[in-house]
Amino acid sequence: MTPEEFRKSGHELIDWIADYRQRISELPVRAQVAPGEVRNALPSEPPESAESFASVMADLESIVVPGITQVQHPMHYGWFPSNASLSSVLGDIASSGMGTLGISWESCPALTEVEQVVCDWLRQLTGLSENWHGTIHDTASTACVTAMILAREKASDLSKNKGGLTALNAPLIVYSTKQAHSSIAKAVQLAGFGNDNLRYIEEDPYTRAMKPEALAAAISEDRAAGKIPAGIVCSVGATGTTAMDPVDAIADIANAEDVWFHVDAAMAGSAMLLPECRHLWEGVEKADSMSWNPHKWMGTILDTALFYVRDVEHLERVMSTSPSYLRSTADGEVVQYRDWGIPLGRRFRALKLWFHLRLDGPDTIRKRIRRDLDNAQWFKQQIESKEGWEVLAPVDLQTVCILHTPLGSDGVSLEGEALDQHTLAWVDKINSSGEAFMSPSILDGRWMVRVSVGVEGTERAHLERLIGLLENATSD
Amino acid sequence: MTPEEFRKSGHELIDWIADYRQRISELPVRAQVAPGEVRNALPSEPPESAESFASVMADLESIVVPGITQVQHPMHYGWFPSNASLSSVLGDIASSGMGTLGISWESCPALTEVEQVVCDWLRQLTGLSENWHGTIHDTASTACVTAMILAREKASDLSKNKGGLTALNAPLIVYSTKQAHSSIAKAVQLAGFGNDNLRYIEEDPYTRAMKPEALAAAISEDRAAGKIPAGIVCSVGATGTTAMDPVDAIADIANAEDVWFHVDAAMAGSAMLLPECRHLWEGVEKADSMSWNPHKWMGTILDTALFYVRDVEHLERVMSTSPSYLRSTADGEVVQYRDWGIPLGRRFRALKLWFHLRLDGPDTIRKRIRRDLDNAQWFKQQIESKEGWEVLAPVDLQTVCILHTPLGSDGVSLEGEALDQHTLAWVDKINSSGEAFMSPSILDGRWMVRVSVGVEGTERAHLERLIGLLENATSD
Repeated sequence: MTPEEFRKSGHELIDWIADYRQRISELPVRAQVAPGEVRNALPSEPPESAESFASVMADLESIVVPGITQVQHPMHYGWFPSNASLSSVLGDIASSGMGTLGISWESCPALTEVEQVVCDWLRQLTGLSENWHGTIHDTASTACVTAMILAREKASDLSKNKGGLTALNAPLIVYSTKQAHSSIAKAVQLAGFGNDNLRYIEEDPYTRAMKPEALAAAISEDRAAGKIPAGIVCSVGATGTTAMDPVDAIADIANAEDVWFHVDAAMAGSAMLLPECRHLWEGVEKADSMSWNPHKWMGTILDTALFYVRDVEHLERVMSTSPSYLRSTADGEVVQYRDWGIPLGRRFRALKLWFHLRLDGPDTIRKRIRRDLDNAQWFKQQIESKEGWEVLAPVDLQTVCILHTPLGSDGVSLEGEALDQHTLAWVDKINSSGEAFMSPSILDGRWMVRVSVGVEGTERAHLERLIGLLENATSD
Repeated sequence: MTPEEFRKSGHELIDWIADYRQRISELPVRAQVAPGEVRNALPSEPPESAESFASVMADLESIVVPGITQVQHPMHYGWFPSNASLSSVLGDIASSGMGTLGISWESCPALTEVEQVVCDWLRQLTGLSENWHGTIHDTASTACVTAMILAREKASDLSKNKGGLTALNAPLIVYSTKQAHSSIAKAVQLAGFGNDNLRYIEEDPYTRAMKPEALAAAISEDRAAGKIPAGIVCSVGATGTTAMDPVDAIADIANAEDVWFHVDAAMAGSAMLLPECRHLWEGVEKADSMSWNPHKWMGTILDTALFYVRDVEHLERVMSTSPSYLRSTADGEVVQYRDWGIPLGRRFRALKLWFHLRLDGPDTIRKRIRRDLDNAQWFKQQIESKEGWEVLAPVDLQTVCILHTPLGSDGVSLEGEALDQHTLAWVDKINSSGEAFMSPSILDGRWMVRVSVGVEGTERAHLERLIGLLENATSD
């Protein structure tokens, strides 16, 4: 395709995207397609020759769009917000258009250095000290695998340079809670620790925060048994209920025990743009690594996960290889981000953040996050004031975990399996309708519903509408 | 940013990109900036409020563009081609614009199903059987880590579900050659095998292909020593000289020994669009996993790496976790790509491939790849016919490894360190000039220069110009 053909189609595409974003609230929130429906609508065999841009766009509209769950829809309350601010989309388009290659500083000096700059801007914007050095990963899952490998290599005295993990005589142990994101368990498995060596520490029954004294006891017990404590993962805003582990108390234990301490603030990191929220990760300065996702609440388009470490030397020792074909005259003077993560090649992701922060401005972003915090508190109060409804966990951020408990035909409140069936029935009814979307989730062995506020377009009026939907769906 | 503001800026950006691509051959190939130059030109503190689109674009032009090594430039012969076809850029823009979220089938059914369709299209286009099931990773490095974890878990009988690697009594061994990409050694380290347990097998001294009999002997030796052969990595188009390991013979050994067999065709995969090249990976059907990068020669914009496996059940057993908050009504009926790789969240990357294949057409792509194969052969012959020049390795694809050996002041051909200095001097002279770019690399302990043909815009005339530059740079 020539630049002139691109120019023509590109203009059409920009208009299509602008129109799409304008009509998003008219689309069903959850895709209404059945499994296989999109696939079956597409040819099972590849094309042989070029097709027109018009025909591709027609298929995008008629086949792809109905297969999208609209996470930019103001009535989307599922999972966590996955905002894709249009200012960040512009940065992403610039990145794609230039077609750069990041495999070394030399292959695109600007890619490396703009990434250094924006990671440092976000360090400052979240109130972190200069001791932190950041890079962009695709997701917090990948950042977490990296953190677990750093933990493993610290505890095993760089076993990767020796006989590997099989040469060790004692198991390496990682500590977390059951509230921690599934990526923690996955990282522990992928990094070779083994499932059995992930120890879930007791939580407070209401806040679901890790109990530091239980952590300390577990570490002592493991040491006494000849095991090697290797990593502690603390959640700041865990996925289920946005539980907040007590970072400061855990950091003191980690530091005293000389165990790698990773803070997973994937969701809550965005809130740290607000000084009034930073008490939620008090003690973070004592951690070894930390990650959070601007591609969630802050709204830089996916995939933009930040990974910060304090000890860059350990990071590079663990993650680097230096083949001769990547040699350059600038070696030693520059950062080679390939030695800070798993992939060798990287896109110019920093532009998404650069455009987003400059075109929207941190003040505007902070205002929006404060709006969401207010809306979540308002919604919590509304739910608590309603007969038969309750809020199951603290609302420290923007997620409200709700339960509706009706009376059964015998006049007694539903419980157990019957209550689960009721919960899944009403949430599936709303989700299937396309009018709003929420994620059911299990808490203490029972289904409840997470209402996660924070889509860029979600205003108070949308939450009022959600309350109406909740009342209708549970009124039969 | 509102959709209307996006529309206005988006149109400006499209024009800027089209202009940029039109003037790319006027820009220096290698960025001319010094380390720190881009960084120092940017504010060290973040903005507080919104800036204008014009000011961001002005900085993009004056600060970022000079910091880009132009891998889309027709005189770029470095590393491997990293083509970013404008048709694929359109798909990437569509993906960004829609702002979808891939964490489960339910979060965007179309994202999953279009990915299934395009991975299957490329399976057919490269002549693979229906036994293969594909997904998109960011890079071949990540695909390789995944393959090594699959190998580890097969050989250790799912140690991840038990006490992990430290519970094993014998080391797990991976086999490859020194020609294999650095990501293989990195994957072995990251997956916990340990450096010492990566065994480099002897190569043919000219083709640099793995010797199957040497592999068989190494495996026997290791078994006799109580070690556990776990993985074999075969390179189809290794990075240094595009060496081709004999896939078929190695596959027979891997299958007989029941060892996981991964084929790294990151570069050569694009050539498999041509039936006449498929003899180069004869036997691939017997492999367990295979990856290749459409974001190289084929030209779908980075990051688009394909990862295929035959045994999806093993893949999902090793890579899956199933938290309740990702539960959906479609579970069991659909593919969950989060269980096929490391990250949970994914972009709608399949659109890049969908747009690229449909807008350019496989016939056009094949024609361009055949042009590059012809150009590389022509260039090889030109070099071989020149006094003082030689081609150091077979040219099976599009990379020509060259060496210039001048006479010293004593009338004797340079060798050793003096030859290395000469080589690095002439290549750095050309690279610094911005007129062309090539990657120096070490082969058999000596520096040589890789001329990697295959940028979308590179025609015969550009190679003629390169020959002139080579003559000039070595004529003193």
